Amino acid sequence: MATNESWDGLRLDGNTVVLGIIGDPIAQVKAPLPLTRLLQARGINAVLVPMHVESGNVASLLNALHAVHNIAGIVVTVPHKQRAAGLSIDLSRAAREAQAVNVIRRTAEGWQGELLDGAGFLAGLVRNGVDVEGHSVGLAGAGGAGNAIALALAAAGAASVDVHDVDEAKRAALVERLRALGHVAGNWDAASPRDLVVNATPAGMRESDPLPIALSAIRPGHVVADVIMEPATTQLLARAQELGARIVHGRHMMNEQLEAMADFFFGGVPR
Amino acid sequence: MATNESWDGLRLDGNTVVLGIIGDPIAQVKAPLPLTRLLQARGINAVLVPMHVESGNVASLLNALHAVHNIAGIVVTVPHKQRAAGLSIDLSRAAREAQAVNVIRRTAEGWQGELLDGAGFLAGLVRNGVDVEGHSVGLAGAGGAGNAIALALAAAGAASVDVHDVDEAKRAALVERLRALGHVAGNWDAASPRDLVVNATPAGMRESDPLPIALSAIRPGHVVADVIMEPATTQLLARAQELGARIVHGRHMMNEQLEAMADFFFGGVPR
Repeated sequence: MATNESWDGLRLDGNTVVLGIIGDPIAQVKAPLPLTRLLQARGINAVLVPMHVESGNVASLLNALHAVHNIAGIVVTVPHKQRAAGLSIDLSRAAREAQAVNVIRRTAEGWQGELLDGAGFLAGLVRNGVDVEGHSVGLAGAGGAGNAIALALAAAGAASVDVHDVDEAKRAALVERLRALGHVAGNWDAASPRDLVVNATPAGMRESDPLPIALSAIRPGHVVADVIMEPATTQLLARAQELGARIVHGRHMMNEQLEAMADFFFGGVPR
Repeated sequence: MATNESWDGLRLDGNTVVLGIIGDPIAQVKAPLPLTRLLQARGINAVLVPMHVESGNVASLLNALHAVHNIAGIVVTVPHKQRAAGLSIDLSRAAREAQAVNVIRRTAEGWQGELLDGAGFLAGLVRNGVDVEGHSVGLAGAGGAGNAIALALAAAGAASVDVHDVDEAKRAALVERLRALGHVAGNWDAASPRDLVVNATPAGMRESDPLPIALSAIRPGHVVADVIMEPATTQLLARAQELGARIVHGRHMMNEQLEAMADFFFGGVPR
């Protein structure tokens, strides 16, 4: 029998705890190997595997997977974040505010949901020595990631969160949501300076993409953060660095999220 | 982030095809890592993970997993082999004869079932240079493995298959099944000599187990095969070797089955 005898230390046997990541499509997800590595480095016999499922089948899949004793939880990606929140019996504050989850874990009664996008982004900033409290934020992108980041920054004490999105309805909804929670929020032209400038749009994944934020928004010493992981350094971050800004790469959000996921699935406490 | 940077070449990402192995219990299964290694050594980005599910939830789980696009198939172990056969839209001849499956694969219409236990055992014999045709067989154990092995040996041209089991009803049912298919079959006392002597009972897994077959059944030059994988060499095989018999280890059945599973899930043709 032909075998690959490397993979030293990889645990994959009858005692392995399984995590799934659901999405549609699924090919783009990056988490399976790094989360599996992180968990096994912590001494946990677990593996994360992709599951490509359409929206109409999410409810029956989550029901069926809840009956599998060694499935501890599910990572949820687009477009299932809202639906999975609706199928959870219990939501964390972040998940409740956003009405979206990116992780659910198995309890005896059902799935318990959490949204780590915002906390992961925030932890990435903190890890890079960025102080959020009292600072003005300019955020481009009012989709799922933008919503989670805006709520997390506001909850962490940002003085104001101003939002830009080409979709006016999405922008207005996020501003309204922030204000309803008692935060200072408004519209942003993605060109006026802010202490902390964040790109939460997909613009920058391709080299031909226009900059999501005008360079006039960036001042030396201020912070520019991007959620994009590939390329590691987007055009926005490269230009911001040339202008003397401090930059925070998208991979920090991912890395912090993996740690937070490991905590959530194995030994974290409900928030 | 703490990571384990070994596992060179392991593919686990958004394009990974997932296989599950269902059973109750599941901790005892050995296949996840070796089948994953075998598949990836063939250049297939796939992984086998355990799923511990009770009988009452097998139908809903298989229904839900059929909707997951990147799940190619399921390995089925006790006690779900009969139930999964009943849930398959199409069965191979071996699965039909035994009314049991140990693998099912995804087709557009539903699950297609196959039973590789017998073929795996037979391939293990062939790989060890054992000729079955025209030989008399003494088989101890009329459970799932015993049934599959008996049918495979009979189909491969064994002159006769005589069966022993402490459970008279199981023994009688297997003898009847063999005869109904036109084979020569009868009862066996597990003490009279046969050309090919097979242990398909669990006796031998623990050192304190009694021998499942009396040594009087074994002649020099004849063949003694065991389905037990741990210990690699059971007391039966050790004593048979001392008596000058040719022995075939349980691991051969396992190894041949892994190859057959890989064929079945990825590129095999329906039998």
